[in-house]
Amino acid sequence: MAQLPLSNALKNVRRTTPLVHCITNYVTVNDCANALLACGGSPIMSDEPLDVPDIQTICGGLVLNIGTLNAHTIEGMKAAGAKATELGHPIVLDPVGAGASKLRTETAGMLLDAYDVSVIRGNMSEMKALAGAAAATRGVDVNPDDAVTRDNLAESAAFAKALAAKTGAVIAITGAIDIVADAERAFAISNGSPIMGKITGAGCMLTCVTAAYAVANRDALLEGVVAAIAGMGIAGEVAATRMQPVDGNASFRTYLIDALYNMNGEALDAVARVEEV
Amino acid sequence: MAQLPLSNALKNVRRTTPLVHCITNYVTVNDCANALLACGGSPIMSDEPLDVPDIQTICGGLVLNIGTLNAHTIEGMKAAGAKATELGHPIVLDPVGAGASKLRTETAGMLLDAYDVSVIRGNMSEMKALAGAAAATRGVDVNPDDAVTRDNLAESAAFAKALAAKTGAVIAITGAIDIVADAERAFAISNGSPIMGKITGAGCMLTCVTAAYAVANRDALLEGVVAAIAGMGIAGEVAATRMQPVDGNASFRTYLIDALYNMNGEALDAVARVEEV
Amino acid sequence: MAQLPLSNALKNVRRTTPLVHCITNYVTVNDCANALLACGGSPIMSDEPLDVPDIQTICGGLVLNIGTLNAHTIEGMKAAGAKATELGHPIVLDPVGAGASKLRTETAGMLLDAYDVSVIRGNMSEMKALAGAAAATRGVDVNPDDAVTRDNLAESAAFAKALAAKTGAVIAITGAIDIVADAERAFAISNGSPIMGKITGAGCMLTCVTAAYAVANRDALLEGVVAAIAGMGIAGEVAATRMQPVDGNASFRTYLIDALYNMNGEALDAVARVEEV
Repeated sequence: MAQLPLSNALKNVRRTTPLVHCITNYVTVNDCANALLACGGSPIMSDEPLDVPDIQTICGGLVLNIGTLNAHTIEGMKAAGAKATELGHPIVLDPVGAGASKLRTETAGMLLDAYDVSVIRGNMSEMKALAGAAAATRGVDVNPDDAVTRDNLAESAAFAKALAAKTGAVIAITGAIDIVADAERAFAISNGSPIMGKITGAGCMLTCVTAAYAVANRDALLEGVVAAIAGMGIAGEVAATRMQPVDGNASFRTYLIDALYNMNGEALDAVARVEEV
Repeated sequence: MAQLPLSNALKNVRRTTPLVHCITNYVTVNDCANALLACGGSPIMSDEPLDVPDIQTICGGLVLNIGTLNAHTIEGMKAAGAKATELGHPIVLDPVGAGASKLRTETAGMLLDAYDVSVIRGNMSEMKALAGAAAATRGVDVNPDDAVTRDNLAESAAFAKALAAKTGAVIAITGAIDIVADAERAFAISNGSPIMGKITGAGCMLTCVTAAYAVANRDALLEGVVAAIAGMGIAGEVAATRMQPVDGNASFRTYLIDALYNMNGEALDAVARVEEV
Repeated sequence: MAQLPLSNALKNVRRTTPLVHCITNYVTVNDCANALLACGGSPIMSDEPLDVPDIQTICGGLVLNIGTLNAHTIEGMKAAGAKATELGHPIVLDPVGAGASKLRTETAGMLLDAYDVSVIRGNMSEMKALAGAAAATRGVDVNPDDAVTRDNLAESAAFAKALAAKTGAVIAITGAIDIVADAERAFAISNGSPIMGKITGAGCMLTCVTAAYAVANRDALLEGVVAAIAGMGIAGEVAATRMQPVDGNASFRTYLIDALYNMNGEALDAVARVEEV
């Protein structure tokens, strides 16, 4: 990523304040909104089919997170996805729980097939479920032992590139080691803190932040997504340094969003552990 | 406001613990509930049409916030609005995003026309959209350069008084300078912190707190709304004083609600910057 | 409870990471998720009727909280309740606002009659409403003076045992003094902090934590529920010790979840004030 320092991607977000329309689950929606504000974007939430075309029109991008999908919000996702596709706005899909239920797997696959998804952000199990769903020829492919490790890094990167080639989207698989890939290149990112797994919403927030980066970095989408993912990992590291013995996951959540708010471009370039794989 | 110190309005809230029924967006609803508890009120959330008449009956007032409206919750707003109007309970309308979509503009206008709204709390763009909608003779009137400033204060106050006269509601236009007006009098309030714009929900919380003040100060509604608006601004100032270099918008949100919780009547009277305009 | 130290129940939660499917209100759902993670469980939220059977199948238990029920989520509760009953998974019912509206009282009664509810967690007014609803022979029985006190402890314990006998569920009535009972035995728990009443969600979080304890302690359900209830009270006490003069209910919420996260088995055994009554 020597060509484009990550700090440039951050600067583009802060300079343009991308307005992101989020259809996201009601569990973590408040954190998503505050995380978007913290990173330099601006959130609008709307899931009513009659409302979303107007809202998407005034925004720069769209988040589709299926975390608490229901029959009505699925219709909202369709209407918003269609409008974003028509306007050429980046769509970031978060297939929360794909593989855990038929409805989630099928909805994620449907959204991916029907609309122009620019980025998919999920964990490896969700991504494997999606790979099965997108192929639409066999059931969901979930491997119980899905974590990306040093040992399976090459294989994981190849999977991500293949999914990127098939879907046309940048693939961001997050975990202890994150993989970000398009069809040509893949990067591994090793920032983060294990406490991020002890709060709800770290993934959902990251999806929304990624959308802000995608909107603000449309000419360098892969680099933009790498910056978003590395930035969240670094925010997790900063948050971990603030933890006192009496602090728990609730304090960590506050510290994490605070760290996004105070994210510094030079620190992002200096501390990011990004390698091409 | 020499006749009625703001601390009296606060005292009335703390003394009576007004129970406020909120139909509000799912983004900031948790902060709304905690802000209501912090200021001395008590929240109940319910948006199901079959549930809201009973719930409104046991409450003292109603918040209608259209932030994440959908077809079902609009029906809930109608049923609750009808019951509150029948019972003579104050209704506080927050026209979130009026002007940003046809559905929001029309829903805000419909609620305003159909039910006895006591207070409207929004930003100037929303209020201008509402002024168009309420007239129902032309499209939404949004001015891109809407902020209330020292330069347009007289004009803004005249707009607020006119909207109050047309709607019969107390108008609370919030921003760096807030305007609170009925048809006869207008006040400018200059408390607050710019960090309030970096969290989600400052406006939604204020709407709910305003409802608690409206319920507890029915005989002096204008003064009650001024106290609520000034109090939130002062809470923002207190929260800003707690900010450390590592703190961001998430910590600020906590500090803001904490400041409402610890609000002191004497401080409210001493620190409020309220002027008749 | 000498036979089974409370720390054992906590250990069982931490050892097995019970996955709890929550259909809960959108006001406090984020706190519920973080509280479940804090105590050692893991949350999944899903309320769409088409989604809940698959989700319940991969979980160990179910929370049904009627705090912001609507026509669609009631259908989700039914589908999830049926699946949990079929699979023999513990169901924990939180009858939020039973007695405050006909729909809530009837829905709570319906869920209790139709599905195999293992634990009911609510305040005394809700429980009295439920006792009326479950009998289905008279209206809701709400006593305005419902608090459990030293004076009515024997009577309250008898009420809880009778409701347990009628419903087949462990009854957890929470307040300044909590009562936990099955048909045979009743315990009073005197831990907690009055500030818990100044945040939204203390009860909802406790319901979810109770579900984690119920799943992890199926062979000693009564003891498991006592440990969950006492543990939340102790967490409230720990949170109260962290309060500084500038802190309010928002900080308290953070401290409370943090305290669940840092809960120590030895402290639980040493500090719990549990007595058979």
